[in-house]
Amino acid sequence: MIEIRKAVAADWNQIWPIVHEVFARGDTYAYSPDTDEKQSRAIWVEAPKATYVAVEGGEILGTYYIKPNQPGLGSHVCNAGYMVSAAARGKGIGRAMCAHSLQEAVKLGFKAMQYNLVAATNVFAIELWKDMGFEIIGTLPKAFNHKTEGLVDAHILYQLLT
Amino acid sequence: MIEIRKAVAADWNQIWPIVHEVFARGDTYAYSPDTDEKQSRAIWVEAPKATYVAVEGGEILGTYYIKPNQPGLGSHVCNAGYMVSAAARGKGIGRAMCAHSLQEAVKLGFKAMQYNLVAATNVFAIELWKDMGFEIIGTLPKAFNHKTEGLVDAHILYQLLT
Repeated sequence: MIEIRKAVAADWNQIWPIVHEVFARGDTYAYSPDTDEKQSRAIWVEAPKATYVAVEGGEILGTYYIKPNQPGLGSHVCNAGYMVSAAARGKGIGRAMCAHSLQEAVKLGFKAMQYNLVAATNVFAIELWKDMGFEIIGTLPKAFNHKTEGLVDAHILYQLLT
Repeated sequence: MIEIRKAVAADWNQIWPIVHEVFARGDTYAYSPDTDEKQSRAIWVEAPKATYVAVEGGEILGTYYIKPNQPGLGSHVCNAGYMVSAAARGKGIGRAMCAHSLQEAVKLGFKAMQYNLVAATNVFAIELWKDMGFEIIGTLPKAFNHKTEGLVDAHILYQLLT
């Protein structure tokens, strides 16, 4: 049984290996593959409005954050980022976290959700997000410097929540 | 004769009234209309990679910045923002700064330029930027909370530089 709940400080020891592994792959997030633990913590749990974990039997299998995508007059649109540990892929955790995040975003008062830079190579995630109601509103040529594939296109995804 | 050059510390006294006036209008930038001087300085001259001024006879009539639009694997794409003082509109200063920024961006090693949140109501600027080679790659419904018009659509503009 997978539970999704708000992250607490003690969760970081289990969150960090997931964040580190995903950043190091350099195929989905723009943050540098060598982003260190302190920077990662600032990015993943300090800067966001809220951070969550997906837990099964005390083990953290995935994590996501929600934050305003822009300041002031753009702050009614949120951004979210999701990660699933390599060992826990294929269990529907990404889908469950995305669904959870859309509900939480509404509770937090956001009016829309936006993903800013989705590497076009990330085909599995893009299909999932379209399933969850997102639309590709545009594609930025060569905007993502994929660690192994070099410059690839990146999509912007968006959905209104209300 | 209008000269465009890098901003120096002593320019801030003339830059701040322009930034303040434009932010306060709440019709083009996402930053809150009540952004104060310290925050504005951080946004306009401290955070960016470089800040420039358009000067005529010692008077600063416009200003712009360039910065990476994303960290790490997205940092080869830059973002830029431009402002012209209310008194100096219609003199082609926005166009001159945009042209200058595209050249500077190449010199600084950027491969593309992106504007993330261009209010659809900002018709004059959008036409100018299309003239300067930008393409509207997508439109975000209700993504900009215009101070007087409420939630309006916002465009994302992009152009490859190389």
